[in-house]
Amino acid sequence: MAELTVPDSSSTLPDSTASVTAPVAIPAGSVGVVAPRFISFDEPLALTSGQVLPSYELAVETYGTLNEQRNNAVLVCHALNASHHVAGVAAENPKDVGWWDNMVGPGKAVDTERFFVIGVNNIGSCFGSTGPASINPDTGKPWGAAFPMLTVEDWVRAQARLADYFNIDKFAAVMGGSLGGMQALSWAITCPERVEHCIVIASTPRLSAQNIGFNEVARRSIISDPDFNGGDYYAHNTVPRQGLSVARMVGHITYLSDDDMAVKFGRTQRAPADNGEFHYGYDVEFEVESYLRYQGEKFSTYFDANTYLLITRALDYFDPSRNFGGDLARALEAVKAGFLLVSFSTDWRFPPERSHEIVRALLKNRVPVTYAEINAPHGHDAFLLDDARYHSVVQGYYDRIAAQLGLGERTKTTGVLA
Amino acid sequence: MAELTVPDSSSTLPDSTASVTAPVAIPAGSVGVVAPRFISFDEPLALTSGQVLPSYELAVETYGTLNEQRNNAVLVCHALNASHHVAGVAAENPKDVGWWDNMVGPGKAVDTERFFVIGVNNIGSCFGSTGPASINPDTGKPWGAAFPMLTVEDWVRAQARLADYFNIDKFAAVMGGSLGGMQALSWAITCPERVEHCIVIASTPRLSAQNIGFNEVARRSIISDPDFNGGDYYAHNTVPRQGLSVARMVGHITYLSDDDMAVKFGRTQRAPADNGEFHYGYDVEFEVESYLRYQGEKFSTYFDANTYLLITRALDYFDPSRNFGGDLARALEAVKAGFLLVSFSTDWRFPPERSHEIVRALLKNRVPVTYAEINAPHGHDAFLLDDARYHSVVQGYYDRIAAQLGLGERTKTTGVLA
Repeated sequence: MAELTVPDSSSTLPDSTASVTAPVAIPAGSVGVVAPRFISFDEPLALTSGQVLPSYELAVETYGTLNEQRNNAVLVCHALNASHHVAGVAAENPKDVGWWDNMVGPGKAVDTERFFVIGVNNIGSCFGSTGPASINPDTGKPWGAAFPMLTVEDWVRAQARLADYFNIDKFAAVMGGSLGGMQALSWAITCPERVEHCIVIASTPRLSAQNIGFNEVARRSIISDPDFNGGDYYAHNTVPRQGLSVARMVGHITYLSDDDMAVKFGRTQRAPADNGEFHYGYDVEFEVESYLRYQGEKFSTYFDANTYLLITRALDYFDPSRNFGGDLARALEAVKAGFLLVSFSTDWRFPPERSHEIVRALLKNRVPVTYAEINAPHGHDAFLLDDARYHSVVQGYYDRIAAQLGLGERTKTTGVLA
Repeated sequence: MAELTVPDSSSTLPDSTASVTAPVAIPAGSVGVVAPRFISFDEPLALTSGQVLPSYELAVETYGTLNEQRNNAVLVCHALNASHHVAGVAAENPKDVGWWDNMVGPGKAVDTERFFVIGVNNIGSCFGSTGPASINPDTGKPWGAAFPMLTVEDWVRAQARLADYFNIDKFAAVMGGSLGGMQALSWAITCPERVEHCIVIASTPRLSAQNIGFNEVARRSIISDPDFNGGDYYAHNTVPRQGLSVARMVGHITYLSDDDMAVKFGRTQRAPADNGEFHYGYDVEFEVESYLRYQGEKFSTYFDANTYLLITRALDYFDPSRNFGGDLARALEAVKAGFLLVSFSTDWRFPPERSHEIVRALLKNRVPVTYAEINAPHGHDAFLLDDARYHSVVQGYYDRIAAQLGLGERTKTTGVLA
């Protein structure tokens, strides 16, 4: 079992960051049992909107060991509904495996034997970092609707302070999928000296009108739920479950490909009437309805509605080309990182064409780019799934990073590539 | 101005079917000012679900003249939110032009100089035919949630009685787009002796899991609106506006192509802050949000929520291959009509591949098929829009029908082809 490694500068961290052991069977290639640490930042954070977050806390997990040169750190940025819990098994709940556990671990594509990997929950989220459900120090009550609006650049700013906290001047890589990929891209643009490599997976340089449209459907659904109470539902002891559930359902459809849904569900009936016929009503008839309702309902029990609003809005706003007349190449002029981009053939949320735009803009700036388009049936969600071709591309890229930075050879191989 | 022509058998129709004139400028190629007639059917209608509709009324418009041989009739079937008002200018509202006015009229693709065209509002709808908002004769109150579930086959059955009413043994063509195309297909399967030609546009032999998923999102949105009151909102004097609005927004996105939305809206800001920046909030920031909200709100003022539920469910259920082990070719064995199918390249709701399935199944049965795949940027909505290539295909097909049935030559050409 891997030990949770706490870097030098963490000696003053609270107890929850101590190494944790639990009687759980840990599979090969896992970073083991992990627990988050919570790191406070008391200096106010000036936000893109003009508002200021007076102080904040970040929930963080780390895997592997920061080396003496402090040049082997990898920052993993999460997408809409994920968290700092990137890899390993949560100490609090042995069933809670990190969302990118197939990617990060000893011998895996992002090899924690050589790299020090940081997972961080974004501000505004609902998994431990300061967000709308946190207490507003000015009022002693939950922030609710008063929590400031955020942008991808704000997350990067908050994460840069986390890098400072760890005394990491430059990341070996900043990586992420989907919204996480936008953060990686923003890192390379806004902190060019601090990113050796930028890994952008299943992402886009900006949302399309269709993307914004789906986000707006989700937001309308949440905001028009009477239990939303203008965002201050904590004070009303309500939860806009129905709205959040519908929001998640529509989001979920956009994460899957049409073909994938056809294979997974097709037109299979859930529980046909005794004569094999339909029930002729609005209860579940088809497997796909059952699946989506379940996903929606489950989501509504653990995800914060204000966070959903905040993050979809940050997605809408992201567009580094905006201050350059829409010219992405100009927005990327300052970039110093090397790039890996990966897209998936059936991703219709952020299709390969969106990655092509980034690749073209980088090439225009003579930035070294590796680009892989993976033929995969699973739509946008493919970036989270096991796929040997995909993982071998990422693994190969990290092996090159390790060689470049003198981090040594891979000593084992686990995961789908083992 | 074209006169509203009432066929022989209509001498006993109510006053509302009389010819109407109004001081409205009628463009060339329009059928003129029109008004619906309402035709009652007192014989109970046995439905697929096993339920029975005791009686019903159909709202109908007709254009052109039924010839002596009664062989020049065309039935136009409507999609989710349309009606019997296919062409011309509504007497009640001069701004209310029929939903397929660019297709149907004197000299247009469906030439009302030669064809007698019937537009009929489906039962379950909310534009004049018997539906959930109608009075249930057993209770004297609106049907509401008690209105029976419907299928495409039920609509065809009700329309067949309408054909009987007009003493039409066989339609020169039954045509429709989207859900209307499903009805045309169902006509050819269930009443093979009554359909000379079947014209199926932008349609599908069955919904995909993704299609059903989007429908389910819409239904959940409506049903979870507290103003829905279990479908009996008429009695509660409420309207589930918010739910219906979100349902329409998500539907609307699926009618447009990603590219079309990019061209129409892109990331254009609606009303930027004075400094050109965003407002950083959940009010409208982007044009696309404004558009979708407007569409949703407008829809919620005139469309009935129970009708939306009923029709999306009928869409889900449609699958003529279901009783043939999923073999569409076997389902089409009895077909006697000739077929025209049209699909649109950027329609991702019912993409060309779905039309290919129908074409293949027809060819397997040696049914004569004309198939056109129109390269159009407008997604599913393309079937409603002016497009010279599309309309010329339909016009050419109708000219062939006219030649076959001895209906004479086209005497004028109007519309996009003029």
